[in-house]
Amino acid sequence: VRAIAKRRLPRIVFDFIDGGAEDEVTLRANRAAFEALTLRPRYLRPVETRDQSTTVFGRRLESPVILAPTGLPRLAHWEGERAAARAAVANGTHVTLATGGSTRLEDLMEETPGPHWFQLYLWPERARNEAMVKRAQAAGYRALVLTVDVPVLGRRERDLRHGFTVPFRPRLGMALEVARHPRWIAGYARAGPIGFANFDEPGTRQRPTAHHKLTHRNPAAGLDELRWLRELWEGPLLVKGLLTAEDAEDAIACGADGIIVSNHGGRQLDGVQTSIDALPQIVAAVGGRAEILLDSGVRRGTDVVKAIALGARAVLIGRPWLWGLAAGGEAGVARVLQLLRIEIDTALALVGCRSLGELDASYVVRTGAVENVRN
Amino acid sequence: VRAIAKRRLPRIVFDFIDGGAEDEVTLRANRAAFEALTLRPRYLRPVETRDQSTTVFGRRLESPVILAPTGLPRLAHWEGERAAARAAVANGTHVTLATGGSTRLEDLMEETPGPHWFQLYLWPERARNEAMVKRAQAAGYRALVLTVDVPVLGRRERDLRHGFTVPFRPRLGMALEVARHPRWIAGYARAGPIGFANFDEPGTRQRPTAHHKLTHRNPAAGLDELRWLRELWEGPLLVKGLLTAEDAEDAIACGADGIIVSNHGGRQLDGVQTSIDALPQIVAAVGGRAEILLDSGVRRGTDVVKAIALGARAVLIGRPWLWGLAAGGEAGVARVLQLLRIEIDTALALVGCRSLGELDASYVVRTGAVENVRN
Amino acid sequence: VRAIAKRRLPRIVFDFIDGGAEDEVTLRANRAAFEALTLRPRYLRPVETRDQSTTVFGRRLESPVILAPTGLPRLAHWEGERAAARAAVANGTHVTLATGGSTRLEDLMEETPGPHWFQLYLWPERARNEAMVKRAQAAGYRALVLTVDVPVLGRRERDLRHGFTVPFRPRLGMALEVARHPRWIAGYARAGPIGFANFDEPGTRQRPTAHHKLTHRNPAAGLDELRWLRELWEGPLLVKGLLTAEDAEDAIACGADGIIVSNHGGRQLDGVQTSIDALPQIVAAVGGRAEILLDSGVRRGTDVVKAIALGARAVLIGRPWLWGLAAGGEAGVARVLQLLRIEIDTALALVGCRSLGELDASYVVRTGAVENVRN
Amino acid sequence: VRAIAKRRLPRIVFDFIDGGAEDEVTLRANRAAFEALTLRPRYLRPVETRDQSTTVFGRRLESPVILAPTGLPRLAHWEGERAAARAAVANGTHVTLATGGSTRLEDLMEETPGPHWFQLYLWPERARNEAMVKRAQAAGYRALVLTVDVPVLGRRERDLRHGFTVPFRPRLGMALEVARHPRWIAGYARAGPIGFANFDEPGTRQRPTAHHKLTHRNPAAGLDELRWLRELWEGPLLVKGLLTAEDAEDAIACGADGIIVSNHGGRQLDGVQTSIDALPQIVAAVGGRAEILLDSGVRRGTDVVKAIALGARAVLIGRPWLWGLAAGGEAGVARVLQLLRIEIDTALALVGCRSLGELDASYVVRTGAVENVRN
Repeated sequence: VRAIAKRRLPRIVFDFIDGGAEDEVTLRANRAAFEALTLRPRYLRPVETRDQSTTVFGRRLESPVILAPTGLPRLAHWEGERAAARAAVANGTHVTLATGGSTRLEDLMEETPGPHWFQLYLWPERARNEAMVKRAQAAGYRALVLTVDVPVLGRRERDLRHGFTVPFRPRLGMALEVARHPRWIAGYARAGPIGFANFDEPGTRQRPTAHHKLTHRNPAAGLDELRWLRELWEGPLLVKGLLTAEDAEDAIACGADGIIVSNHGGRQLDGVQTSIDALPQIVAAVGGRAEILLDSGVRRGTDVVKAIALGARAVLIGRPWLWGLAAGGEAGVARVLQLLRIEIDTALALVGCRSLGELDASYVVRTGAVENVRN
Repeated sequence: VRAIAKRRLPRIVFDFIDGGAEDEVTLRANRAAFEALTLRPRYLRPVETRDQSTTVFGRRLESPVILAPTGLPRLAHWEGERAAARAAVANGTHVTLATGGSTRLEDLMEETPGPHWFQLYLWPERARNEAMVKRAQAAGYRALVLTVDVPVLGRRERDLRHGFTVPFRPRLGMALEVARHPRWIAGYARAGPIGFANFDEPGTRQRPTAHHKLTHRNPAAGLDELRWLRELWEGPLLVKGLLTAEDAEDAIACGADGIIVSNHGGRQLDGVQTSIDALPQIVAAVGGRAEILLDSGVRRGTDVVKAIALGARAVLIGRPWLWGLAAGGEAGVARVLQLLRIEIDTALALVGCRSLGELDASYVVRTGAVENVRN
Repeated sequence: VRAIAKRRLPRIVFDFIDGGAEDEVTLRANRAAFEALTLRPRYLRPVETRDQSTTVFGRRLESPVILAPTGLPRLAHWEGERAAARAAVANGTHVTLATGGSTRLEDLMEETPGPHWFQLYLWPERARNEAMVKRAQAAGYRALVLTVDVPVLGRRERDLRHGFTVPFRPRLGMALEVARHPRWIAGYARAGPIGFANFDEPGTRQRPTAHHKLTHRNPAAGLDELRWLRELWEGPLLVKGLLTAEDAEDAIACGADGIIVSNHGGRQLDGVQTSIDALPQIVAAVGGRAEILLDSGVRRGTDVVKAIALGARAVLIGRPWLWGLAAGGEAGVARVLQLLRIEIDTALALVGCRSLGELDASYVVRTGAVENVRN
Repeated sequence: VRAIAKRRLPRIVFDFIDGGAEDEVTLRANRAAFEALTLRPRYLRPVETRDQSTTVFGRRLESPVILAPTGLPRLAHWEGERAAARAAVANGTHVTLATGGSTRLEDLMEETPGPHWFQLYLWPERARNEAMVKRAQAAGYRALVLTVDVPVLGRRERDLRHGFTVPFRPRLGMALEVARHPRWIAGYARAGPIGFANFDEPGTRQRPTAHHKLTHRNPAAGLDELRWLRELWEGPLLVKGLLTAEDAEDAIACGADGIIVSNHGGRQLDGVQTSIDALPQIVAAVGGRAEILLDSGVRRGTDVVKAIALGARAVLIGRPWLWGLAAGGEAGVARVLQLLRIEIDTALALVGCRSLGELDASYVVRTGAVENVRN
């Protein structure tokens, strides 16, 4: 699917989706970390039916895969979040609309209703944040996800080199390359200017701003902000982007109901620990006081199984659904979700579990760990 | 030998033999795991004669290498299992005919008698399984091997992409490539339609079915099925595909006489532990209550020596004999067995053992393990 | 920046800057060692302002990055140390003029004043060393850096192959390649002969000498030399090039105020430990009795953050500023410093620290370290 | 030097020298194992003179590098062992003439006298072995080296493919390639047939025999053979090819004065432990009761320093001197020895030792070993 997306998207868009921070060490490490953990399967246990459903904050998911919040999905395909939301709901899951998304939060909920979540970036201005949260509450979003690993934007050098701006407007040097993608251009023309759909009142014109100079983040935010949000928001509140037991403790102390262990897909701090390596420590520290999810590097059903065996309730995927969206719109996203569902189903059968609840850490062992051999 | 096989076979057939599941992480890991274990040789011990024979369930094998069950060997060469069985018996070993084999079980035993084993996949219908087991018993198979790591089929993406079907019929897109292998086509013409030879009564016509939709597996099978088989089958009963001490315990408790530690050559669950890494733990748990064999990744005589040093009585090879079969029919399989025999003989001499019985875990040390150096 | 420098410099000059000793194992290891350490970030801590200033020997640095001493910078750009010193001071830091520099120490201090440091190699003749130290003191250098890891020159095989000499004079075989860099030649013509500017009284003519036969190093130097220097020099005295706790102890016992943990950028002993791996042991041994700095392999802001988390007060960069110098003279060096500053600022924000002082070893974890997983 | 040798030699000869057993895993591992050990240098210790001499069995070596026994050196250059012996003696060391050498043992000692060693392979016939040992004693060889890791020949697949025979006679398929090396052919013509010079009485004609069918090895040899040799031989007796503490104990118990830790340069058992990894364990077990040497993978002065730090008294080099011989005859071997001497001298200076005796295990640390960091 990624290969199709690469073919269909102008390089500036593909790199915006695909790239990571600086040397992309973490981007590669995210995959290597999953591969370094191997599975210990159990056989001769009846697995004629496998149930990969899970419950997150009391709601059933058909499959433990949620669509992660991502910026400007309409760049991948003109229908953007709407197409993704239809595909998600049809597959028993939901999307997480991003503050930096390209669809108005009210429109998404009205046109493609579902138990969607809303992801929040904080502006320095509390009033603006309050307005945004209240709009999300009013629109019916089920949960609020506060992303905390973007006090400042990571240095995504592909974007810096391409001069990526929001609203999107490719600079002259890239125009020739963009011109080679007529199908994408047609969609783009249909979409109209693609920018942040939730920042301003409709009608206000945004001027293209260099991606690294955008202001929808608040480096001054601290635990107080989290406590304030806790007061303001009535549903489940998740904190996304934590990688340490210490931060998980703090988040729970401030009232978080859930934690998304994440390194932002390697797009923020290059050289940070991988989320799958950080997970067990956080699970041990939290001990059931909050629900733990994970993203960053999930590409295969076995990755999902490993994350759940190590204590996650579900995972989020980012790039994969954008690749699907770019490759085939709603159908592409659906295809990605269905492939993952098949892979999870196969993986469950092959590790000998009928449901996610049977998975635990005994199903995982590090590569090269050999007992009883001279070391 | 693999290189010759690759040249001689259409890509769809070569990939069916050579491929692994999903990203083929486990396929590569199987080799890396053997390489990560190094040998500790003993010298100045008389090794003028080396005896690589072993005893498996009371029967002598000239060499500790058995031919693993594989699906549809006649795709590699029109003579299929018959050629392999002749080569195996001539070299003091035997084949394991697969449920999914391409030669009728009665025909194989009649035309190329030997102490062959029969590998069993379970259908959901117990009557069908019973019929198959009884046929195998009547035909004189010495041991029954129940494969347990295929409750569902692993996702072999090369096959999925090629649209591999059984009985074999290459789809249009592959025809041109197939046409470039006239020698293979001649053999194929001679073989007639190649399908599962043991599923139906002769004369019944099978329709091509996508490989991943075949039904000769029973995800509902549990330890009860193993106990039932134990009652039914009179000879040695092996369980193939285990990778944990826990499962080995269960299998023995249900009456298994032998265990084949295996990850199905990386064709089932991608990202699973390698069999050579799993072996010592299982050997320690079993403690002599059953005979332990191993497959997945065995390519060299030193691999065999490592497996036996860590507690296996013998190993099985899969792809290597299919490569030999593809490269030269019976003579090709014989060549593979003889090369391995020479390598095992050389390896035994060079680690200072006159027989397999002298090998133990003191002959193996992990790469990079250095005593007395600052770590 | 390195890519631009590579384009702009003749190969003999680029290799002199870029190369390492022998097989360049250490050169590569320096990068791998930083990548093997990952960061444990803390979030939801207010980081609206980040202060990357530090204090080294009582003087404030705007950023914890000092320009390391390097031989013959004027080969990279005709303005050499002067350009670098202007860029450094403008960015709140300073240079370390090398004994083997290409600018007279008095000239540098007069023309581009700043809190610069002077790096010392010892000649066998103590009088000559004394004269040099006194010149540096008189000229106003703030600190003296004694490099101790060059008792003899490491075998930099690129230089040996190219027949690199000082003063620089490319041998015939390289002339053609040099000729392809007219812009560099123009600068070189403007610079006049480039040699060691501090060895002889002005006016004395130096004859080209093979780089490996130069005599400004004293393999006989021992701790006595350090004690003698301590007597002679009035400001802070640093020892550069140590990699062991034992040597750090000795240096402090002889009166050193600071230690630069370094493997000379992989240019001296190939196969030596990396400085980032050696750092924690030295920090533990020193326990605050001296200030500890680090160089060798620092390329990114996250590298700086890791070094400081593990106990360094600041780092030095070598090749990066020479690349900047080659790419754009003063502006190029400034660009390198500014990029690093931005990266450090971003990294601080993203690990959740407002100042360098908040960093400690809890922010670092080795790649692949996973708690609570079966090993 | 290897590159020159590769150019100058026909492929069949180059591969005979350069190749290893089977997949050449050990050949590569030998290098990787040295690279995985890093040095911990000590500075500010006077190293104005470095003495790399050592004493092996009471004789002084100018440098701790001895020429290892190798088969048929005259294939690399028509002067073979004679040229190497001249170069060795001129550089303060000596050669080890191999049983499988291409120069008569009496001729070598007469024409190029020196404190050479003689390497022994055992025939099954004790009388033949006795005759050989007595000839070596009579000719004045200083020490006898019994190679024990060749009870049978390792499977060097490059030689098997090329049909390498002794006396050397390239088969037809290789002739064209050989013809492209006129300079080598001229030397070969001058040398006359190149075979084992010590097997038969002069004048006897040897017929070309496939390399793997040669009989100068005795798989029946055991510790009795070693005891018998101990009786027979009057000078120092070394055992070459051990890799375990257990074997070292046995050898000493049988009267061995020295042990050469070796994996035969990766030419015998592929997948065996590397000699540098095996060394510390053997040194610890032997505790000074015998002198320990090492070969296999030594290419750089730092490798020599690492081996000596871990307890070897000297090292042997094999391929490097053959490369030198092929590249430039006597001068080529001398060049290799001198380069190593310069590198050892540099390495000694750079780790802060004036003599080999100062080196110990504190100078070595594994790559990636970092104290006080969260693991």
